[in-house]
Amino acid sequence: MNKNSAALGIDCGGTNIKIALVRTDGKILDSVLEPIDFDCAPQVSVHSMAEKIQRFIHKNKAAGIASVGMGIAGEVDQSRGIVRFSPNLGWTDVPLKKFLSQKLNLKIFIENDANCAAWGAFCLDAGRNCDNLLCLTLGTGVGGGIVLNKKLYRGSTGSAGEIGHMTVQYDGRRCKCGNFGCLESLIGAWGLVKTAEEGMRSGRASNLKKLIQAGSKLTPQLLAEAARKKDPFCVKLWQTAGEQLGSALSNLVNIFNPDRIVLCGGVSKAGNLILRPALRSLKKRAFKTPVEKAEITVSKYDQQLGVAGAALLFLE
Amino acid sequence: MNKNSAALGIDCGGTNIKIALVRTDGKILDSVLEPIDFDCAPQVSVHSMAEKIQRFIHKNKAAGIASVGMGIAGEVDQSRGIVRFSPNLGWTDVPLKKFLSQKLNLKIFIENDANCAAWGAFCLDAGRNCDNLLCLTLGTGVGGGIVLNKKLYRGSTGSAGEIGHMTVQYDGRRCKCGNFGCLESLIGAWGLVKTAEEGMRSGRASNLKKLIQAGSKLTPQLLAEAARKKDPFCVKLWQTAGEQLGSALSNLVNIFNPDRIVLCGGVSKAGNLILRPALRSLKKRAFKTPVEKAEITVSKYDQQLGVAGAALLFLE
Repeated sequence: MNKNSAALGIDCGGTNIKIALVRTDGKILDSVLEPIDFDCAPQVSVHSMAEKIQRFIHKNKAAGIASVGMGIAGEVDQSRGIVRFSPNLGWTDVPLKKFLSQKLNLKIFIENDANCAAWGAFCLDAGRNCDNLLCLTLGTGVGGGIVLNKKLYRGSTGSAGEIGHMTVQYDGRRCKCGNFGCLESLIGAWGLVKTAEEGMRSGRASNLKKLIQAGSKLTPQLLAEAARKKDPFCVKLWQTAGEQLGSALSNLVNIFNPDRIVLCGGVSKAGNLILRPALRSLKKRAFKTPVEKAEITVSKYDQQLGVAGAALLFLE
Repeated sequence: MNKNSAALGIDCGGTNIKIALVRTDGKILDSVLEPIDFDCAPQVSVHSMAEKIQRFIHKNKAAGIASVGMGIAGEVDQSRGIVRFSPNLGWTDVPLKKFLSQKLNLKIFIENDANCAAWGAFCLDAGRNCDNLLCLTLGTGVGGGIVLNKKLYRGSTGSAGEIGHMTVQYDGRRCKCGNFGCLESLIGAWGLVKTAEEGMRSGRASNLKKLIQAGSKLTPQLLAEAARKKDPFCVKLWQTAGEQLGSALSNLVNIFNPDRIVLCGGVSKAGNLILRPALRSLKKRAFKTPVEKAEITVSKYDQQLGVAGAALLFLE
């Protein structure tokens, strides 16, 4: 496969799919975002997906696309191409590969979306130039993917990498997954919003309450803007989130001793508000040799990681 | 190497070394525990070690020993045979392999002791019959080792596997390593003793206080005995420790999706006092597919894991 070959990478979210034509060096040659209705039988959603993929392939037929890699939020059985469970899509045991194969005459591979992002980060951010890399996707939820010895690590049933559901406070807030004090429940977008709501209810976040009453929407972006304007509650909120993220990074550094940890997703856009306390906390907490080795960066390819990783993972 | 070949495995603790002649199937053919004085220059301690090892080799000269694997509590540079840092031995940057090679005409390999235990658990408890195994050594401290795809995972600088220094309560008790709320600071022997001391000081552990005043020594064994006699403070102490261990196991299951997690070391001897709440907590917290896959067991080979693992790791 030469540098100019290309494959299809698809990132399947809860309301739409992103389809991209990806060159072997990770460059996106063409891409499109297509809405998909998931409020119907899975087979119907997949039929609609397949049509949109076919249209994209037809438009790019000169590229000679031979394979499709698709990342899905949820638990995936990669070998059989089954989505075991995806809370976002409302799917349980959906034979996605089989459904898609009935429509598309291509090799199809299914993978967890954060695993695709990790592979994207390994290929693009690290240029494949390290052995051990972890990726955290800090979005509404917090996902994770693990590359060890230059290979995606999937674990014994393909479920590995759920870094967002690592407990950093064993008696903390209940997470959507049923666990308590997961990283996601504290610093995922929904966790941050929940912390802000608690602050408003208890009267500690009066400035924020005014903003909301004036019509602003409670999002991590709003919390970041307020912190940049020195609102004390929001400044503290990001400091605490950074401390919690740092403690999670420290766990990863002590356990995996990686070359690199790449952060991506919306919450990483809060930049130094969360990163500065996170790195301070990490340095304070982790063992010296591995923390000096581990490079922590925010991805330069954020929006591309999912599709690029999905395509490239299956060009291996 | 046939089944009847043998190698030397050595487990180097803070006050003595255990030397064992280990067959390739893990059977211990001969072993001895030798005191070592570590209150002197490292070179002097190593000289004393080498003499004791030589004596053991001489006694077993018929076995044709060709290699020595040694496990050390601390951070090890395996490739250069240097002990980077061992708080237990009071060593920093000690070229152990070089020192030993001057005395012993054998191939010498140095490894972290919990990594050796993990390899021992993989060979003996699992019979090498799984891909991904984690091992937790629950002693005074809490160590860890990681076997992935049937190989010991060492990370990018050989420091991987510090599972005991995973935070399970980011704002919790300060650990000896400098971090806060590490698993070790909560359920390592010293952490349990500290919890009991805090209980006595605050008047919540009056029965325990009486036992100590009557001359008993405050150890995990005493805490287990008291809990078995239904002392309410100690019952609660083990329940909480179990909950905390369960939360750590849940992190490992969600992140590594292993076939197996093997527990060993003194604290695991508290048995169901800690295991029952730990497994309950694990089942409540972890994702369904990986938790159903992961077998959690206490090692059947506890005392042998370190020496067997050290010997076998270097027969590979």
